[in-house]
Parts: sequence; structure tokens; C-alpha cells
Amino acid sequence: MSPVANRRDLDFLLFEVLGLERLLLEPRFAAYDRTSISGVFDVVQAIAESEFLSCAPKLDTNEPRYVSGRVEIIPEVKRALDACAAAGLFGAGFDESVGGLQLPTVVTSLSTGILSCANVAVANYQFLTVAAANLIQTFGSERQKELFLAPMMEGRWFGTMCLSEPQAGSSLADIRARAEPMEGGRYRLSGSKMWISGGDHELSENIIHMVLARLPNAPPGVKGISLFVAPKHLVEADGRLGATNNIALAGLNHKLGQRGTTNCLLSFGEGGETVGYLVGEAHKGLAYMFHMMNEARISVGMSSAMIGLAGYLYSLDYARTRLQGRSVKDKNPYAPQVPIIEHADVKRMLLAQKASVEGALALVAYCAMLVDQKAVATVAQDRADLDLLLDLLTPIAKSWPSEHCLEANKHAIQVLGGYGYTRDYPVERLYRDNRLNHIHEGAFGIQGLDLLGRKVRLEGGRALDLLLARVRASVIEARAVSAIIGEASLLEDALKALEGATAKALSCEDPERALANATLYLDAFGHVVVAWMWLKQATVAATAENQIGCDQDFYAGKIIACHYFFRYELPKALTQLALVGTLDTTCLSIRPEQFIGR
Amino acid sequence: MSPVANRRDLDFLLFEVLGLERLLLEPRFAAYDRTSISGVFDVVQAIAESEFLSCAPKLDTNEPRYVSGRVEIIPEVKRALDACAAAGLFGAGFDESVGGLQLPTVVTSLSTGILSCANVAVANYQFLTVAAANLIQTFGSERQKELFLAPMMEGRWFGTMCLSEPQAGSSLADIRARAEPMEGGRYRLSGSKMWISGGDHELSENIIHMVLARLPNAPPGVKGISLFVAPKHLVEADGRLGATNNIALAGLNHKLGQRGTTNCLLSFGEGGETVGYLVGEAHKGLAYMFHMMNEARISVGMSSAMIGLAGYLYSLDYARTRLQGRSVKDKNPYAPQVPIIEHADVKRMLLAQKASVEGALALVAYCAMLVDQKAVATVAQDRADLDLLLDLLTPIAKSWPSEHCLEANKHAIQVLGGYGYTRDYPVERLYRDNRLNHIHEGAFGIQGLDLLGRKVRLEGGRALDLLLARVRASVIEARAVSAIIGEASLLEDALKALEGATAKALSCEDPERALANATLYLDAFGHVVVAWMWLKQATVAATAENQIGCDQDFYAGKIIACHYFFRYELPKALTQLALVGTLDTTCLSIRPEQFIGR
Repeated sequence: MSPVANRRDLDFLLFEVLGLERLLLEPRFAAYDRTSISGVFDVVQAIAESEFLSCAPKLDTNEPRYVSGRVEIIPEVKRALDACAAAGLFGAGFDESVGGLQLPTVVTSLSTGILSCANVAVANYQFLTVAAANLIQTFGSERQKELFLAPMMEGRWFGTMCLSEPQAGSSLADIRARAEPMEGGRYRLSGSKMWISGGDHELSENIIHMVLARLPNAPPGVKGISLFVAPKHLVEADGRLGATNNIALAGLNHKLGQRGTTNCLLSFGEGGETVGYLVGEAHKGLAYMFHMMNEARISVGMSSAMIGLAGYLYSLDYARTRLQGRSVKDKNPYAPQVPIIEHADVKRMLLAQKASVEGALALVAYCAMLVDQKAVATVAQDRADLDLLLDLLTPIAKSWPSEHCLEANKHAIQVLGGYGYTRDYPVERLYRDNRLNHIHEGAFGIQGLDLLGRKVRLEGGRALDLLLARVRASVIEARAVSAIIGEASLLEDALKALEGATAKALSCEDPERALANATLYLDAFGHVVVAWMWLKQATVAATAENQIGCDQDFYAGKIIACHYFFRYELPKALTQLALVGTLDTTCLSIRPEQFIGR
Repeated sequence: MSPVANRRDLDFLLFEVLGLERLLLEPRFAAYDRTSISGVFDVVQAIAESEFLSCAPKLDTNEPRYVSGRVEIIPEVKRALDACAAAGLFGAGFDESVGGLQLPTVVTSLSTGILSCANVAVANYQFLTVAAANLIQTFGSERQKELFLAPMMEGRWFGTMCLSEPQAGSSLADIRARAEPMEGGRYRLSGSKMWISGGDHELSENIIHMVLARLPNAPPGVKGISLFVAPKHLVEADGRLGATNNIALAGLNHKLGQRGTTNCLLSFGEGGETVGYLVGEAHKGLAYMFHMMNEARISVGMSSAMIGLAGYLYSLDYARTRLQGRSVKDKNPYAPQVPIIEHADVKRMLLAQKASVEGALALVAYCAMLVDQKAVATVAQDRADLDLLLDLLTPIAKSWPSEHCLEANKHAIQVLGGYGYTRDYPVERLYRDNRLNHIHEGAFGIQGLDLLGRKVRLEGGRALDLLLARVRASVIEARAVSAIIGEASLLEDALKALEGATAKALSCEDPERALANATLYLDAFGHVVVAWMWLKQATVAATAENQIGCDQDFYAGKIIACHYFFRYELPKALTQLALVGTLDTTCLSIRPEQFIGR
């Protein structure tokens, strides 16, 4: 088994569960078939194993340093990213017409996931560049595309997202960076941006920053934010690099994990002019950014799932070989010790990891597939439906993996025991790396507000109706399968609980109270959706034709993991939904001075 | 508010909830009253703030290093431990007759807790020394006490516990270290010991190792393990230090957290003779060690709770001052931002921390108090009952805080957002430090097996009966208090669920199946016990006479935290107990080859 991907599971997910082959029949993806998609993953896996995985511990121990005005990063990082670029992975998802490989999003997303499984801190540079390039491709002018897109898709120039500021993280309404018009349709940018991943380094020839800032006299709040593109080095009309654009590295943040990704405080327009170019229309920057953010959020979920997978695969391998203890039935002290995978509680910790990781992976792959289905949909109503469904699932796809695959990483440490707590094994690093995913790209609590405060209310709740219809279709299918007939009923019950809690929250006229338990709602909703993903997988596994040999083991494992999820996990969601349904005000009611007394 | 202790909560716990003043009326503790106990905490708090807290980040960044045969540790660590020694904290719990302060265990345990809140990596050296000294005091010969005890109680010599070996961690039955008789009642020790905290350093004049090893022809398994005391430097008859005892540092482990505590692989008897002295009788070593381990396990729970408290206090302070966002009711973008403590989800994360941390603290303090009550009990049956109750509660006191106060530390990071993920703030370190507590002194899963496989079966379930009687007495008391009358009923229901699940598990004749969900049982049992601790606290808070001013806020906070625990946490235990009651075999049933396929 490769330590960076479970290819059997990827095949199962893409070809047996999600029906990628049907998508590949669409003209947009006609260049690909199952074999060539496998070839893409072969290439990605080879790069991930040889270039990404090998330097992960070294990069974690030797994080980027700021040395006399430059960022120093161990050379392996550039080599790894150059290998990605050479394989065309920066442009893999872009249209052929602009020089891309026009691969389905589900494939490019999983490809980045494989890189993240090996070394998320390096994969981030690729992911951020693709996200920035996507933004230019979607909203940029023809001139901006001409100037910036090709070198980004070639992996020669990298990209960033400059949203947060020291005083404005979760509250983007409060950003203060300014953009003043200059001659020639250019803007003079000023202000500070905080938490900028990949904000400075020498890995690429240039860095293309996508910057949120306010025009003079812009309205306050979110309606006065515009989007600008600002390169680290100015770009001449012929594409050559010009003078510095005065985007200064004011400091590197030193993080708990994902240490190899530089995380920067950037200063714009100090010590010289910083030039930016307006992307799209004035004051619409946040909406544009959220277009990108939605895909970025699915990618965060992918990253969480794949960091979880890394810990799962490692601890599974360890559990198979580490001898310790005997069966509780065996009282003979002369008996040899058994591999710890024979102990029920170790099995539980591995099964918990499998259920979270493969469940999360199915969810994010499902969402990525919706993006592809939207891209090929010919009927406007279908596109609108897919959009709504994506809107609804995005906060869940971002958040659920970040919580439960972090828990998986916690289990991976536990399987290794004391060894897992040392820096000689990768599982502690994975645990540190994954902790970020609760926080960036919209913190966990923010996603809850988005889901309960906005997404389930869209178009009178139509997004939820669309989702429920899809889940109920799966329930009907599963009812015909004896191995999971009980799980089908449990999911039906959970749907009713979800509908009930949603209706209660929406009926509450006090917005503060209605949203007081939004985070619990998000987590519970995620459990219901992942239960659905497990029901879908188990339905396929139980009815698969090739029930022999190692495939039989694989399918049996899927069914057991489904049982595990429904028995050990889903009930937690029901207790949470019951609480949400009471509109409980315990948390809302406590006053700051009551926490500890004085 | 001090960052290392909530003194108001300590007073509440000790004097209002646990009735420490009654204990102080006993002859054993007659030297102390409420004022002098407060004085002890004043001293500990001052040392914790000035000597422990201040060097915590530096020690974490500059972990002990092995340099040409010696362990180098930053000098602040020795200064902090010397301050402890000067204040008499190493001997605080020992009898006056041997030169100790004869303080109640609940006070010494909380004192070490305050040091752990400030800097657990340093506090460990004190805790380990006290544990080793306790073992000598309880089971050592008069000569051993004469030689070793005084310098340990003075904090001049430190102590360790040498149990694990590279191939025997959770499975102590498999330890291989050997002890061969020499002339003069001495033994020649050989073999390797792994994960030895404080195993080598230059912080003290000598290190006294308590070592498990096998005598020649010892029976296999746990019945052939003996306990030895082996000093780093041999001790002459007059107490002066002699030659090296050839206990070699074979390597330092580099850990995720608690980095300032050296963690060593030690080699005994290589390159020269290592002399050990048998403690107590041959082959009874494991039983002796478990005497100590039980108190050590309560201390691990204390440490978990206090690391959780450190994060709680820090994030609470941050939430009160960090401005970000506005009320969901406030749509005015010109309105100033509010402190994040005003947001419902931040309140939830703080309340979750409060509920876990103060609940865990109450539990470990309750257990420590049982130790004291046992020490002063005059009736044999009372002592036996207290022993049984302690036996039952120990795996819970060790494990529950390690899980739920780690979760509290996760919340603390989240409250700080991106800042919390950087190493500029202490919360990420606390999260790393606390992760150890699942693992050492008996891993989480081992504690579950101990609880369900042994403790609830002791004397036909009498331990559980004793506990239930105490909980039911609290329920009856709470039923008379209107603010928590609902919680009283919920706890009664939870007790029934606990009894039902226990009966089901005990009725199962297949030991593997009976124990398959022991970890869930442990966690759920812990929830029930901590719910009891909250009911007790809320009962006192709701009926306290001094309901004015800041005390009113403090008591109100206790009642709200009780509500939170019963509404947001306790239902989780009921779903777990339901599952335990089904004797579910999902985890047991999966075979190694079914996890991922091939």
C-alpha cells in the first residue's frame, strides 16, 4: 500500500460510487477514460512519494526562515513543486483553450489531495496558485489573463489570497486596506495583510497576490470591498518581470503545523508604490472571492481528509506489525505477543479512522463531482440546482473533515502509543498539520453560521429539499440490500430529525437564539451527510459482482465501516439535533463576568 | 485572575463542595486550618507564576539536549525546582515524623496541579520524585528509607519510575530486565528501560530509580516481576554519594509536548555493574508499583485538568479583549466591533472548557480527598470502602480529563483563531502538552479494560454500589433545589443507563465481546461521574448564602456550567451506554485484511 493514497479506494469512489465514467462521456472530458485517469493518478502518486513525502519531516523541522530580506526554504520544496509543474499539475483543471489539461475537478482535487497526504505544507503552494489563477480566469480582464494566467498554469509564478488583516480575520467586513486610483486604470494599494499563506518565498519567479481592498469613498462593510491583482514583481507589457512592486514581508508567522508553507504579514505600499489592477467591477470583490473560496473550502476538506488518511495508513501498517499483549481470552504468559491489530480497541481506533477518513473523502469527492456536473450541465435549471446543492454542502465539506479527520489523527497517535508521541514518527506532525483546518478559510463557527444562517434559508429551503431528495433516493436503493437495510432506516430517521431541527431553528424569530447552536447543527448535519456517503458506499459494496479474493475483503470492510458509522457515530448527531431543536439558550445566556468570578 | 490558578474556584471546591474544613479537624491534619491552607496555595502560586510560567515557552523551544554524555537543560528549570524544594513542596505530603509537612493529599495534589498549570514539563520532576519517595516510604526497608527518603523529600535527589521497555509498554507482563543476586542482599540489574521521564539530567545531586525487573527463575508474566531501587550514583553507608551505578542514558526521546521533561531510554549494567536493592518481597513488584500508579494516575488527571485550565484562563482573557465582528442582530457596518466573548459560539467554546476543566478538577480533587479520608478513617470497613471507591474511580480520574481537557485545549486554540495556531501564544503548546496524558501511566484503552474488566467486578460489584449510593444521595439533595431539579432527574436516568449497560456487559460470557466496547464504557462512565460533580457544585452554588456581588456571578456561572454539562454533554454518554448495552461486535468483527483491501 502506498503511504500517500489508497488507490483501490479511489477507484471504488470514482468509478463504482460516483460514476466518473459517465462524466467522461461528456464532450468536455472526452479526451479521458478510466485508463488515462488512472495514469494521471500514477504520475501524481509517483511525485508525491518521491518528492513530497521524502522531505516532509525535514521541512517540518527546518521551517522557512527570514534571512536578510529573503525567505529561505530547504531546496527539496522547489524540486517537488518543479516536478508538479513539469507534470502539468498547476494547469490540470484549466481549459485546453488556455493551455490546461481540462481534467475534471474531482480528479484535480484528488490529485492535490494525494500531494497533501504526502506533504500538505508543500501541496499548499500548488493549491493556492491554482485558486488564484482560477479567480483571474473567471473574473479577470482579457489583459489580466494574458499577463498572468499562462505562467501560473505553468507553475512558474505562484499565487496567494490576501483577505485577512491583523484586526479583521473572521470579520472581513472590517478590512481596511486601501486602493487609490492612479493613471492608466491602475490602483495604488496600501495596508497590511495577515495570515497570507505563500505570501513570500523564492520558489517561483513571481507571486501573484489577489488582494481585497477598499476604494476611496467605498461604502462600509462587505459592500465596499474590491478585488485587485498585485504581482510581487511588476510585469512588463511583453510579460517580462520588471521592478519590485513593494509588497514587503513584514514578518513570518511560526505555526503549530503546516510549517513549510510560509505564512506572512505583508505590507503594501510602504517604502514605495504598490500597483494593483482592479479585477471585475468595483465593490464586488467579496463576492468574487467567495466564488473562489467555495472551491477552496472543498479543498480544505480534501486536505483534512488526506492528512487523516496519511495517519490512518501509517497507524494501520504499524498495528499490523507491532507485537504487544495477548488476547483477553489468553491467560498463558508463555504465549507469544500478538500484533496489536488483534486487540478490539485498536481495531476500534482504526475503524474510527477509516470511517472518518473514507467518509470525508467520499463527501469532498462528491462535492468536486458536483462542480464537474455543473460544468457540463446543458439545462439552466440543472446548473442552478447543482449550484444550490454545492452552496449547501460547502460549509459541511469544509468543516466536517477538519473536525473528524483531526480526531482520526489523534487516534493514529494513540495506536502508536508512546512512539506516536515522539517526533520520530509522522503521526504527531499530521496531528499538528490538520489542526489548522478548523481555522483557515472560514473558521468552524463561521461555517455553522453560514449553513444555518444562510444556506438552508436560500430560496425558501430549496437547497435542503434538493439534498433530501438525493439522500432519500439512496435510502430507497439501500432498503433493497439486506446487509444495510437497518442503516437505511436509521438514515431515514436522521433525515427527519434534521428536518425537524431545521424547521425549529428557522421558525425562531430571534436571530441570535436561532443561531446560538449553529455549530452543533453544522456538525450534526455533517454526520447525516457522511452517513449518507457510507450508505452509498455500502450499497455498492454489498451489490458488487466481484465478491472474490481481496476485493471481497475490501467490500466487506466498506460494509463494516458503514455499520460502524451508523452505530458509533450517527447517534451523536441525533442528540445534537434534539438539542438544536430545543433552541437551547444556555451558551447565549452566560455573561462574561460569570465564567470564573473575580 | 492569576494565569496558573482560579483561587476562587479552589476555595469553592475545597471548602464549599468537598468540606475540607471537616477533614482538618482530624488529628492528622490538626496543624492546618483554612487560613494556613490558603497560605500554602499562596506560596505555590507565587512560585508557579514567578519561576514556572516564565520559562515555559523557552523550555519548550529549547528542549533538553544530550551533549557529550550529559543532559543540558536551560538553567531556569533548576531554579524553579530549587524554589519548590526551598518551600518544602517535595516533602509536603509526607508525615511530620519523617520530616514532611503532613499536608492533606488533596492539597499537595492541587499544589502540583498549580505548578502543572504553569509549566507541566517542570512540575513533572517534582511529581515523579514524590511518587518514587512514596513507594520507598510505603514498601521500602528501614535502611532504604534512611538512605533515600530525606534527600528526596528535600528535593536534593529526584526519582523516576522505570516500568516500560522498548518491547513492553502497555504489556508489562513482557518486561525482560533482569536482576541477579549478589553478595550483601544486593542485585545486579541489566536490561533497557524506555520512556523514563526524568531518567537522566543534572538537576539534582542524585536520581533514584524505581525499577521493575525479573529475578532468575521468576515465573513468567506479571507474577514474576520484582521492584528494585537503583540510584544513579551509589550511596555510601553514611549517605554520601559514591561511584556511578552505570545507568547509562542510551537516548533522549523527542516528544510532541512536555518537551522540558527528559524522556529517556536507559541501559542498566552495560559498561559496568548496576546495583539495585530489592524493595519489599520478591515477585510482588507490580502490585507495589500499582499502589503508586493509582496515585500517579489521579495526578495525571490533575495534570490534564490543570493544563486545560491554563488554556481556559488564557482564551477567556483573550476573548474579553479581542474585538471582532458584531452581533448577528446588528446590521450596521459603522457600529464598532465587539469583544468576541459576546458571540454565542465563543461563549460555547468557553463554557465547554469551563465544564470540562472545572468538572475534571472537581473529580480529581474528590479522589484525592478520598485518599485523605482513608488515611484518617478509624473503622476498617470505612477504609475498605474508600479503597474500593478509589479503585473504581482511578481509571476514570486518569482518563476522562485526558480526553476532555485536551478537547478544552483544542477550543482554546479556536478562540484565538489564527493567533492560537502560532507559537507566539501558549495555547498550541498546552494542546501538545496535554496530548501525552492519553498515553502514559496506562493508555486510555487500558484504563477501559481496567474499569470494565476488573474494577466494576470487584467484590461482586460492591465498588459500583458504593458509588451509586453516593451519587443518589447527591441527587436527593439536588431535587430540593429548583434551579437544578431537572438535572437531578437526568442524572438519575443516567445512573439507570449505567447500571443497565454494566449488567449487560457483565452478563456476557465471552470476555472478548464483554470488553469490546470498554473504552466507550469508560468515557460514558466518566461523563456520568463528572455530571455528578457538576450537580454537587450547582447544589452548593444555588444554595450558597452569599448571593451578592461578584460571588453572585461566580455561583451563577457554576449553575450555567452545570446546565451546559447536562444538556450538551451528558446525552452523549447515554448514546454510548446504549451501544455498550447491545454488546456490539462491529469493531471486534473486522479482520486486519479488511481495513483497506490490497
